Amino acid sequence: VRYDWVSFTTDYGTADGFVAACKGVLAAIAPAARVLDVTHEIGPADIRRGGTVLAQTVGYLPAAVHLAVVDPGVGTARRGVVLAAGSSLLVGPDNGLLTPAADALGGIAAAHELTEARYRLPVVSSTFHGRDVFAPAAAHLANGVPVAALGPAIDPATLVRLPRPHTSVRPGELTSEILNADRFGNLQLAADADDLRAFGGKPGDRVSVRHRRAGVDAVLVDTFGDVPPGALLVYVDSAGQVALAVNGGSAAEALGGRVGDVTITQVVQQ
Amino acid sequence: VRYDWVSFTTDYGTADGFVAACKGVLAAIAPAARVLDVTHEIGPADIRRGGTVLAQTVGYLPAAVHLAVVDPGVGTARRGVVLAAGSSLLVGPDNGLLTPAADALGGIAAAHELTEARYRLPVVSSTFHGRDVFAPAAAHLANGVPVAALGPAIDPATLVRLPRPHTSVRPGELTSEILNADRFGNLQLAADADDLRAFGGKPGDRVSVRHRRAGVDAVLVDTFGDVPPGALLVYVDSAGQVALAVNGGSAAEALGGRVGDVTITQVVQQ
Amino acid sequence: VRYDWVSFTTDYGTADGFVAACKGVLAAIAPAARVLDVTHEIGPADIRRGGTVLAQTVGYLPAAVHLAVVDPGVGTARRGVVLAAGSSLLVGPDNGLLTPAADALGGIAAAHELTEARYRLPVVSSTFHGRDVFAPAAAHLANGVPVAALGPAIDPATLVRLPRPHTSVRPGELTSEILNADRFGNLQLAADADDLRAFGGKPGDRVSVRHRRAGVDAVLVDTFGDVPPGALLVYVDSAGQVALAVNGGSAAEALGGRVGDVTITQVVQQ
Repeated sequence: VRYDWVSFTTDYGTADGFVAACKGVLAAIAPAARVLDVTHEIGPADIRRGGTVLAQTVGYLPAAVHLAVVDPGVGTARRGVVLAAGSSLLVGPDNGLLTPAADALGGIAAAHELTEARYRLPVVSSTFHGRDVFAPAAAHLANGVPVAALGPAIDPATLVRLPRPHTSVRPGELTSEILNADRFGNLQLAADADDLRAFGGKPGDRVSVRHRRAGVDAVLVDTFGDVPPGALLVYVDSAGQVALAVNGGSAAEALGGRVGDVTITQVVQQ
Repeated sequence: VRYDWVSFTTDYGTADGFVAACKGVLAAIAPAARVLDVTHEIGPADIRRGGTVLAQTVGYLPAAVHLAVVDPGVGTARRGVVLAAGSSLLVGPDNGLLTPAADALGGIAAAHELTEARYRLPVVSSTFHGRDVFAPAAAHLANGVPVAALGPAIDPATLVRLPRPHTSVRPGELTSEILNADRFGNLQLAADADDLRAFGGKPGDRVSVRHRRAGVDAVLVDTFGDVPPGALLVYVDSAGQVALAVNGGSAAEALGGRVGDVTITQVVQQ
Repeated sequence: VRYDWVSFTTDYGTADGFVAACKGVLAAIAPAARVLDVTHEIGPADIRRGGTVLAQTVGYLPAAVHLAVVDPGVGTARRGVVLAAGSSLLVGPDNGLLTPAADALGGIAAAHELTEARYRLPVVSSTFHGRDVFAPAAAHLANGVPVAALGPAIDPATLVRLPRPHTSVRPGELTSEILNADRFGNLQLAADADDLRAFGGKPGDRVSVRHRRAGVDAVLVDTFGDVPPGALLVYVDSAGQVALAVNGGSAAEALGGRVGDVTITQVVQQ
């Protein structure tokens, strides 16, 4: 199978030449492949964030080799891997970065360690495996090299997985970890639409949202425009997660932070 | 008509997967189309800035479907639209974002509301119409679907337009709103080359520039190198607007800000 | 010779439409060319940084027209040039930006000044030669226009070169200027692997690193994982330069800065 697309996710930033060097390697080995950047602004070494962004985006990408590198363990014994999932492949370090996207694509059908020297650059640095190991592997896979040629099969159960973020829910009370704060200050929780159903309530219900500060009043709604400007809302976001936003403002500011647990409590109507 | 190019302008930033999800949707529906990013760093909800950047850039882009999403009203009654202008199409929310670029392209030849469900994703979220409504519409239009198939014609006169930024000019005095401060600290005014002609003066003339602070001396010139390092200059920039710069420095810093009105006064030669 | 690729390096940032306007010009003149962005986040007017990033990346890029614009002298008498080096061309201002990459590609085989009006836009602004002069030249060169058609040959010895950054080394002591701090806070020095060989020492040796602060202990190693988390390491980075890093942290923070000279001293083993 050949792939027209290589998606690309890193914590490299775009101020240095790191992303460009990887793209140059891709272009040299797989000139027909087209690169679709997911993001290169994952916080340095923030594996969880990289895994979450890729998992929430991958369902909207074409079948591709998904190249992802957030790799604080470069140069240590951590494995490089390729995972087959759905009609796509995932290439990167075995540190928990790839498994959420593999799950989102339907689960891991096969996993191989990247050990075969012929699918690396001739000289492999100790600190930049994105360029020297992962990009060449992704390019050869895009060219149709079978996953089994990259190295020995490994048991998917041995792949590193990050602990699940915390969520607990019962009718009228939901506590969940903040998964992400986006550019607009919207806070995405680890809880998803199913959790919100378990919480109960219906559009228009008033709730109280506690973060570090005392509770802030909010309303359960479908979208920003359902509350007045400046009001806090609880909704299911475009990735299917429970999220907090302020219409025309920033929930991160309103609640005083971007990390930790949030508790949403049903306000009993008088 | 098919389009080889889709240009793409948003306030999504590039740290999340929003831009990538839209590009994935474009790739799935219109795999032959090539995406040219204008910018994704419009300030959150800054419709005026998005409209200005697109309008000043569009004349240098190839004929394209120009997809632009700065959309604080997502999920409310604001319309989604496609405008035909020159040999291009513009797709996005009807909130004033698209009309300046349509004017720059020669005016609006046709406008249609995006109502046709077959040109959206099967499930449309309440908060991410870039991915679910606008990118699919842009992709189908790039594929050659005629604008009239996207939804009913609307009267261009009913399109939302932002108020024009303020400029007043008479010989020897020009007052104009700051339209933009770029990365170099150059301040672009709403006044254009015609306004500067109405102001009068000739290259080398001394002027006084007032912002909030007391007046700063400046010189009317063609380019940075026409004044000594550190000096303030007034010139017509590469978009045809009157602009203020400091040779080797930042006009935004020299004048103490990036917003508000600036007044330029001819200094009478002794 | 035609080129499939145009690489693109600037200090334009991506918040304005500058990069997009240049890409639009490239697309109009050379629609078959593919653009590979190196970076657009070179600090405003930081010619040395632009030249360094391009030189360290270019060896991993395909044969291309390398378009680079960091151009504080736009509109002055500085020349625009095209350099032939290796199997690539370099296009940009003659201010020291292009020569390091030309050297990395094997040296300058030919140099021509960009004077030919037919390979510029019809109207050339005083302040945006990236769009009006350099992008059109790069596009025509990608189309196969020979370098000699762009303007008269110039003597490579007359090209502007920046002074070399400072490095001095003797056995047991190496002093070198910080060339760059990357996103991870790793500090890259002007000294390279040869300099480290002249310094001496072997993996595992303890050294002392002095910046402005008093000396910080470090270890000579191959990669991050060879020292405990939080420890400072001295290594040869993926570009072949001597670099300082903190495993899981930031050397820039540990040493109190990103600019100036660093001195590495061998610690005599007791």
